Amino acid sequence: MVMEERAPARQRGLGYSVERAVLDEESLEEVAQRRTREDKPALAQRLRAKLSCSAVRFWRCLFSCIPVLYWLPRYSFREYALGDFFSGISVGIMHLPQGMAYALLASVPPVFGLYSSFYPILIYFIFGTSRHISVGTFAVMSVMIGNVAERLAPDSDFSSLDTVTNETLLDVLQRDAARIKVAAAVTFLSGLFQVALGLVQFGFVVTYLSEPLVRSYTTAAAIHVIVSQLKYVFGINPNRYHGPLSMVYTLIELCALLPKTNVGTLVVSIVSLVVLLVVKKISTALSHKLPIPIPIELILVIVSTVITAQVQLDKKYGVQVVGEIPRGLQAPVFPDTSLFVSVVGDAFAIAVVGYAIAISLGKIFALKYGYQVDSNQELVALGLSNSVGGVFQCFAISCSMSRTLVQESSGGHTQVAGALSALVILVIILRLGELFQQLPKAVLSAIVIINLQGMMRQFTDIRTLWRSNKVDMLVWVVTLVSTLLLNMDIGLAASVAFAMLTIIFRTQLPQYSLLGQIAGTELYRSVEEFAQAQEIPGIKIFRSSANLYFANAEMYEENLKKKVGIDIARLLRHKKKLAMKEKRRKKREERRAKKEAKKTVEREEAGREEAGQEEAGREEAGKEGTQRGSNPLNPHSIILDLSPVSFLDTVSVKKLKNIVSDYREVGVEVYLAGCQSCVVGEMELGGFFLKALSKACLFVSVHDAVLHCLRRAEHGPLDSPAAFENTKL
Amino acid sequence: MVMEERAPARQRGLGYSVERAVLDEESLEEVAQRRTREDKPALAQRLRAKLSCSAVRFWRCLFSCIPVLYWLPRYSFREYALGDFFSGISVGIMHLPQGMAYALLASVPPVFGLYSSFYPILIYFIFGTSRHISVGTFAVMSVMIGNVAERLAPDSDFSSLDTVTNETLLDVLQRDAARIKVAAAVTFLSGLFQVALGLVQFGFVVTYLSEPLVRSYTTAAAIHVIVSQLKYVFGINPNRYHGPLSMVYTLIELCALLPKTNVGTLVVSIVSLVVLLVVKKISTALSHKLPIPIPIELILVIVSTVITAQVQLDKKYGVQVVGEIPRGLQAPVFPDTSLFVSVVGDAFAIAVVGYAIAISLGKIFALKYGYQVDSNQELVALGLSNSVGGVFQCFAISCSMSRTLVQESSGGHTQVAGALSALVILVIILRLGELFQQLPKAVLSAIVIINLQGMMRQFTDIRTLWRSNKVDMLVWVVTLVSTLLLNMDIGLAASVAFAMLTIIFRTQLPQYSLLGQIAGTELYRSVEEFAQAQEIPGIKIFRSSANLYFANAEMYEENLKKKVGIDIARLLRHKKKLAMKEKRRKKREERRAKKEAKKTVEREEAGREEAGQEEAGREEAGKEGTQRGSNPLNPHSIILDLSPVSFLDTVSVKKLKNIVSDYREVGVEVYLAGCQSCVVGEMELGGFFLKALSKACLFVSVHDAVLHCLRRAEHGPLDSPAAFENTKL
Repeated sequence: MVMEERAPARQRGLGYSVERAVLDEESLEEVAQRRTREDKPALAQRLRAKLSCSAVRFWRCLFSCIPVLYWLPRYSFREYALGDFFSGISVGIMHLPQGMAYALLASVPPVFGLYSSFYPILIYFIFGTSRHISVGTFAVMSVMIGNVAERLAPDSDFSSLDTVTNETLLDVLQRDAARIKVAAAVTFLSGLFQVALGLVQFGFVVTYLSEPLVRSYTTAAAIHVIVSQLKYVFGINPNRYHGPLSMVYTLIELCALLPKTNVGTLVVSIVSLVVLLVVKKISTALSHKLPIPIPIELILVIVSTVITAQVQLDKKYGVQVVGEIPRGLQAPVFPDTSLFVSVVGDAFAIAVVGYAIAISLGKIFALKYGYQVDSNQELVALGLSNSVGGVFQCFAISCSMSRTLVQESSGGHTQVAGALSALVILVIILRLGELFQQLPKAVLSAIVIINLQGMMRQFTDIRTLWRSNKVDMLVWVVTLVSTLLLNMDIGLAASVAFAMLTIIFRTQLPQYSLLGQIAGTELYRSVEEFAQAQEIPGIKIFRSSANLYFANAEMYEENLKKKVGIDIARLLRHKKKLAMKEKRRKKREERRAKKEAKKTVEREEAGREEAGQEEAGREEAGKEGTQRGSNPLNPHSIILDLSPVSFLDTVSVKKLKNIVSDYREVGVEVYLAGCQSCVVGEMELGGFFLKALSKACLFVSVHDAVLHCLRRAEHGPLDSPAAFENTKL
Repeated sequence: MVMEERAPARQRGLGYSVERAVLDEESLEEVAQRRTREDKPALAQRLRAKLSCSAVRFWRCLFSCIPVLYWLPRYSFREYALGDFFSGISVGIMHLPQGMAYALLASVPPVFGLYSSFYPILIYFIFGTSRHISVGTFAVMSVMIGNVAERLAPDSDFSSLDTVTNETLLDVLQRDAARIKVAAAVTFLSGLFQVALGLVQFGFVVTYLSEPLVRSYTTAAAIHVIVSQLKYVFGINPNRYHGPLSMVYTLIELCALLPKTNVGTLVVSIVSLVVLLVVKKISTALSHKLPIPIPIELILVIVSTVITAQVQLDKKYGVQVVGEIPRGLQAPVFPDTSLFVSVVGDAFAIAVVGYAIAISLGKIFALKYGYQVDSNQELVALGLSNSVGGVFQCFAISCSMSRTLVQESSGGHTQVAGALSALVILVIILRLGELFQQLPKAVLSAIVIINLQGMMRQFTDIRTLWRSNKVDMLVWVVTLVSTLLLNMDIGLAASVAFAMLTIIFRTQLPQYSLLGQIAGTELYRSVEEFAQAQEIPGIKIFRSSANLYFANAEMYEENLKKKVGIDIARLLRHKKKLAMKEKRRKKREERRAKKEAKKTVEREEAGREEAGQEEAGREEAGKEGTQRGSNPLNPHSIILDLSPVSFLDTVSVKKLKNIVSDYREVGVEVYLAGCQSCVVGEMELGGFFLKALSKACLFVSVHDAVLHCLRRAEHGPLDSPAAFENTKL
């Protein structure tokens, strides 16, 4: 069946046969009975219908706001429980090292990464609609939080010079407390943004983050993350830079500090990286044989902690370890509202990015398993997770690709798996946390870096996009460069602005083409592109491939002139000269009439002479007319194909009006064809249709317009001076 | 002839008759012989053609760079000289008061306004291509210069506290010198911008300043100008504010200072305003009887200067006068390059605005008199005028509506009129300048304010736009408000950004509609809008009125789902259940086969039972199939009308691919119709066409696709379970 479909339709001999009157817009509206706007129900009526209340509506609303009430009572233990249990445990085990590692990115003590892997997930369990994504800590979000935290609570604020030893002392406790405060504030605020956006149904904002943009942005984020982790890998302590170009400065400083590398730390890093890399490769290779991937991260964390504690790497070799991990949970603290003003921009960027990543993953799995994710409810769910999380001093969360894949592949079917993974983390926080105090930070950095492999692989997008769409490739590259150089917040804004500009630019470089008829059909195609497209003598059909609005209206007219080849200015000059000659002739005639009264003798002679001049003037006018008329390349009609136009503004309506009247001035009629009805509506409002220019010059298709022109040319040639004069009206 | 045209074509009984095979894109390309890209000449070849040199080319290039060389030798004394002479004198007389008044706006001494009315005009005479515009000082440009000058050289920098009298002393000479420097620097720089933009052929940037935007912007500028002149009208001396909201602060301060009004100044202002207003009204009323408008401004300047000098208004009543006017010209000074960094933004805004105003006026007159203005050459000409002007300490110029109208109406035909007006100013500078030292500044302010009448009248645009185009009205209002609140430079940027965003927003709110056939035609229109548009049973035709790209791809799919009414998720769930049942059935069968080997006695009985179950399962599947098949509202085909699409990006290509495969999964075929060839090209590059999805699913028109679907539905019903399975491939 598929094969049959691919055979060209022509060979199947299907017939396309139409027989009807030529239709202009006026006739069409009559025939097809176009409805006026009043046929629609009034606004008040629609509002009432929307606000009316019923029990069904109430329940539907409740269920859509708190989805857990809907799906938990319908939870099928037999079908899902086992899968969800195993999946929950597996993901919980992944949360532990990732949570602690991403806490380093967020510049807060590791235990707060565990909190972030607990509270928000519980909230999402209640409000979320995606069954498969694993919400929680995510590298990109964490590094964004880290940027804010280090900007508002830099090391320098908590350093003091020890006057005895002449060394700078850093009050780490104070600093970390300040950073936790900042992280919680920005998380809370970004949660509020998300909830607000969700409530006003602004889930669509995420569509501005196109796929190439998000992929490039996350790649750039991954590079930011890696750069920020290099200090732990080498065990050095560079200054932190902020604002544009900070990554460049950081890299320069890192290079300068390389000789101070802590060898012990470097060894730990390299060993960890190699182990992770190798075991992950093995795990991937054996993935079809293993029920869940090898929890190498957890194993590495445990083993390295034990070794560090036994060999005392921290004291003997100066390897930085995680340090004190408080036991148990902390009481909620309302975030410091005074910080909100200084983090509002970052909070917004975090809100949008976090949502974009979660929703894109959510939609993929919803499609795969055939259920719906409600984009606005997702926004509310993430927002509540973040704002409640902010109160419990978590940092902002989104969802992680790697955990989500594990959650799905190990059998997770519902949000219950996520909730179980949160319980695993709870147990660790309450009982086992302090066991990890001797864990080297370098191990966590290695885990972060290896987890970013997938994002770095996105560099191959450039090649794919180069082949498929150069503009999107440009967006990719610009996003990468601007995010790397301008940092994550301004970089995101710049990238989105650039992506939108490409839309504008695309309409700035449309293809302008003259269309010709494809013999035997009513189809018109570019004569440049199709060898069999034949121009119709005396008619020029012009099309721009893009919309027509203020930014390209001027170009449209210029290209029309170029393609049609009528020099309006020259013709007008000529016409003016003719008019002046005519005027002078009349004056002379008047003078002659006066003279006539005086001289009657020379009358006949003079009369003959003047008549000769008159004749000459008329001949010239006629010549011009026939010149244009006889040359088949000189058109008597122009048809503008407006089918790709989806809206008009006042500038373009005016431009179209001018085109019609300018060409009419030199005796060429202009017709429009293929307007969408919304465009016709905009023309009506814009005053396009005057007495002399009715909807009868608007045809439903190019072919209708062509037929009309041909008929018109047959009935009365337009190029006679008479028509020339008439058309001035 | 015009009347005949308006009669509906239908009544004229013209026939539209087409008989051809149904065409998909594949067949069309074959029939119409689509050219491949290689047919075009190679880049190198085109470059060579472009760069080849010849004598004709050289002269054409020279003439287009220095137009005066072309038109001056061809200057017709007989035809133009008299008109140009009178026009030059009239405009020169207007230049005098305007130049001095606008110098006040630019915060420099009045004589620099006269310089600005001299040097740049001579340069434009050589390089300009518009014959009718009167370049020179312009209120909007002057106030922009004034803003920069007062920001970089504020009064406070030149004030000192007199310790004896305890009064602040202002070093006016020093301050003015500094402001002249700033004005010259910003003028020079904006000239350089213009030349650079012109050389890289960026004349088109001005198209971003749409007409509603420019009109609103100039209105806002007029308000800025009036506010800045109020201090001279009342004779008070408020502080100068800068940055956003400065106008609000200035107004508040002005109100606070009102009790300190200088009564003498106020009287002079009111008298001047009334005289100007009344005489201008008379002049307009008698315009058809007067050869040139009454030069009331010049008369007022002369009379008020004489009166002030006689009555000693300045000394007796504290009326501020113009003060010392140096005689003669000043030597050129290269602008202070150290200032460039701090004025670069303003200079760019001034360059763009100045050009936008000049070119729009130039094009109006070019069209009226049938000649061409070269937008890039205009940019170069204005740029050279400004940069040379900057060296001679002028401030930035553009062209003024009022002077241009006088120049044209008093008989000016060529740039010679402009040059003559410059000579008039030269005479004044050299000989008569010092006579105006006693001219009250309040008179100049009155001249400025009255000259802005025309711009204030643009407020009526709001009403016009409200009727014709609401989006453009929004642009107008936003431009006005942002220019008033954010000042002229940031306001302009914000307005342009907003105007562009409206283009994006417009594509975000397209009309999605289902199309129906208009009986007896091959036309398809929205069933909501046209009462006679009838949907074809089993086929849904969907169209979005806008382009399809990343920002609305998601919405496109959602609206398609809503309009078509197929719940893919539900159908997929159902399909999965069927598949699982089938699987279980097979397992049972396997188990049974094993049992068979053991038990042979109960074989027949068991077999009968299982067969029953099997039957039931199959029946259910069939029921689902017929349910969808029998209900004529359930479509077997979807046609996406893509005729309004002018480009695709990777996101939209992917989305289309997904739509096709998703619906195919549930047994509904999706066809595309009416793609422009550039869109087809983008689909090819984007990998849209796979083996299973060839160009045969792309039809040249909706009607072709419909015919294909109908034929297909006839030949083999698609809704049978067999087809359901086949389509999975």
